[in-house]
Amino acid sequence: MLLKSNIDELKKIIKKENLLTNEEERYCYAQDSANIRHKQELPDVVVFVETIEDVQRIVKYANTYSIPIISRGAGTNTVGSCTCPKGGIVLNFTKMNKILEFNPDDMTMRVQPGVVLNDIKKLAESEKLFYPPDPSNFKVSTIGGSIAQSSGGAKSFKYGTTKDYILSLTVVLADGTLMRLGSGTIKDAVGYHLNQLMIGSEGTLAIVVEAELKLIPLPEASAVITAYFDSIENAISGVNGIIKERIFPATIDFMDKNSINTVEKFYPCGLNIERECMLLVEVDGFEASMNTQLLRVQKALLENGAIDIVSVADKDKIEAVWTARRASYGAAAKLAPDIVTDDIIVPRSVLSKMVCGCRDICRKYNLKVCIVGHVGDGNVHPQIALNLDKDEEFKNLMQAKSEIYALAVSLGGTISAEHGVGVEKLSYLDKILDTASIDYMKRIKSLFDPNGILNPDKIFKI
Amino acid sequence: MLLKSNIDELKKIIKKENLLTNEEERYCYAQDSANIRHKQELPDVVVFVETIEDVQRIVKYANTYSIPIISRGAGTNTVGSCTCPKGGIVLNFTKMNKILEFNPDDMTMRVQPGVVLNDIKKLAESEKLFYPPDPSNFKVSTIGGSIAQSSGGAKSFKYGTTKDYILSLTVVLADGTLMRLGSGTIKDAVGYHLNQLMIGSEGTLAIVVEAELKLIPLPEASAVITAYFDSIENAISGVNGIIKERIFPATIDFMDKNSINTVEKFYPCGLNIERECMLLVEVDGFEASMNTQLLRVQKALLENGAIDIVSVADKDKIEAVWTARRASYGAAAKLAPDIVTDDIIVPRSVLSKMVCGCRDICRKYNLKVCIVGHVGDGNVHPQIALNLDKDEEFKNLMQAKSEIYALAVSLGGTISAEHGVGVEKLSYLDKILDTASIDYMKRIKSLFDPNGILNPDKIFKI
Repeated sequence: MLLKSNIDELKKIIKKENLLTNEEERYCYAQDSANIRHKQELPDVVVFVETIEDVQRIVKYANTYSIPIISRGAGTNTVGSCTCPKGGIVLNFTKMNKILEFNPDDMTMRVQPGVVLNDIKKLAESEKLFYPPDPSNFKVSTIGGSIAQSSGGAKSFKYGTTKDYILSLTVVLADGTLMRLGSGTIKDAVGYHLNQLMIGSEGTLAIVVEAELKLIPLPEASAVITAYFDSIENAISGVNGIIKERIFPATIDFMDKNSINTVEKFYPCGLNIERECMLLVEVDGFEASMNTQLLRVQKALLENGAIDIVSVADKDKIEAVWTARRASYGAAAKLAPDIVTDDIIVPRSVLSKMVCGCRDICRKYNLKVCIVGHVGDGNVHPQIALNLDKDEEFKNLMQAKSEIYALAVSLGGTISAEHGVGVEKLSYLDKILDTASIDYMKRIKSLFDPNGILNPDKIFKI
Repeated sequence: MLLKSNIDELKKIIKKENLLTNEEERYCYAQDSANIRHKQELPDVVVFVETIEDVQRIVKYANTYSIPIISRGAGTNTVGSCTCPKGGIVLNFTKMNKILEFNPDDMTMRVQPGVVLNDIKKLAESEKLFYPPDPSNFKVSTIGGSIAQSSGGAKSFKYGTTKDYILSLTVVLADGTLMRLGSGTIKDAVGYHLNQLMIGSEGTLAIVVEAELKLIPLPEASAVITAYFDSIENAISGVNGIIKERIFPATIDFMDKNSINTVEKFYPCGLNIERECMLLVEVDGFEASMNTQLLRVQKALLENGAIDIVSVADKDKIEAVWTARRASYGAAAKLAPDIVTDDIIVPRSVLSKMVCGCRDICRKYNLKVCIVGHVGDGNVHPQIALNLDKDEEFKNLMQAKSEIYALAVSLGGTISAEHGVGVEKLSYLDKILDTASIDYMKRIKSLFDPNGILNPDKIFKI
């Protein structure tokens, strides 16, 4: 809990209009997109930072008085990484939203952390360049959040995740020191990859204040194939069939019957609600290669029992398919007062067991689940709709989660592919990582943040 | 210096035939592919490890007595990472050369560190899969070395480097503890990316004893275009012209006149020795896209003054072109008693300044230089042939190096793209990294290796 004297001091080092102290205002920043059952602790103050120096001054002050610092962009993460279990200062980066440099010749972009991903994508595309990471919230989420959570998205299968597109980071350390990591060149073999250590560290090691991004040439053409299946096993065989064709689609995504039905109920867009599940496969590349790719994908799907295969190559129609897929979370959220999304990943060869197992576990605990996923990666997102205020439902959710995680582990997978750990998965860490690696992670945390002020109680408790 | 008693103890924990103690034998392991002027310190003993337990036992013993451990694969690195400035134990991994698992369906492979890259590539290709990193020594170098040095190669432009293909690592820590990093799934957002921290750490943080690799579908077709130019500026404009066409070649490589002439002199293969330089551009993908790609690359090259453009699509002919390019180092080595290769990278837009500047600096210091490079990445490899035993030439080399590095930095680049730091570039570290990041790298080193036994005096001195 900050003292009045602390707030008074902060007022001296930051513009007045950039400080929020009212309870109503602070309440807005107590939560992120994770659905957590209990009332959240409020931050003591919210500060909109405008410059790197703002960040340095505040962090230095906070470090002196051991005040927690929670960095926040759009607050779209789903694991509670932006919550404030110990109160403290929320650093709001939405005003640091400038694209500082765009070098089409070098295929690089230098950005502040508050830039929305969509703005990066649009600017890149204006020069036929491409920033591939596309978490489904990319129209609102920020690059700072992407870096913190190591975001992926539908196109990770071919194009990788955020970590593959960061050339350099400028960070503020817990004592306020500015540090540059990575040279900004396409390759860099000078010393340890500290920038890679920062990516996915959820703001617990340092605060990113600038990033240099790698862009790639934008594929000139793309097309989406949708195919329905009468069983999940067939659909997953279809995924593996595509891989066997040695096609490299940008995306292989999946929606189960519940998810299709829920989207159609709330955002009707002509999906077929009769079938068990569907695959969405996007191929891209040179116009001249599209026929080959489409034919081979269709062949693989047909050989595995696909029904109603449709392919669209028109840009608007492709966007419509993706809008339907991305609507799944919002639609599932309308099924019950609360929605909890999860993020499991297993080797693709055992994916069918994971998807079916997940459905069975939810059925056992009487939970409504819509399953979607980036199945090319082996990544499954069960979206569970429930009322968290009902003790019974909450208890069932906890049981189901724990069984889903155990299943993922038994299949050689892990409990977070692209969402992070936050506060949501912290207690499962020792089921996934060995004692030595948790120990070294904690020691690295203490090295960078000896007073434990940077996003405390996220990933693990020290 | 190890005592006789230490050697006797080692004999108790390791098979006798796996221990080399003769001076002649140890002499073979005192050097790697870096050309260092002075006589190298010998290791006290060379141990061929066969199992993870071998590694654990030796490291644990070494840690107790503060004996340096130098891990070694094929010893092909060019920065002295496998040298033994403080003597100690060379851990030779060439007997740990098994491919433990190959899962074509999951597109993964699990390997021991001593596996030669070419074996990984060949096995992957047998199932139409692809392990892209291709340092020019890939026919002899090992995956352990690739991980230690963060290797790239000609195809990094499109496909990235070693760091993009490591799903998990199993490492032995300085105290002998075994630790697993990364889950082996395609994406992983559970805790800090410690595996990325290990990649490129040159064996100074831990010892890699197993790695799980990501493979991708093998492109079904490829073709190589060679083009000569009458000026370096034109060739580099040609590179940027290709990028402007939004083509994404697997490789854009470069050889200057000296390099072309030297290859022709020692390994005649029909290169045109009259021209100032040449570009080698490899495009790949679907057969159906090859014409489009070749036409656009040719257009960009012609518009920038290319002469004698030839394209080959036959596999043997492509291999012949690459054999010529890869021969450049061996050929340059025949020009003088010693050869020193370097590894600079700058943003592509200022590449012409770097290449010409490099040539001017070498001319000023009367040094024979052959310049090759992966110019798509902005990566330049000057290969300097000289006699290191001649004081004057050595002095000139040191001066030239320091000016080349200063030029790279002034152009926004760095002094190692894919070779690492080793002992060769250690004294230039503070010209490249800020004080805070060197400080944190040293602290991380001390955290993982408190007694400083793991490859001491590489990257930096503690």
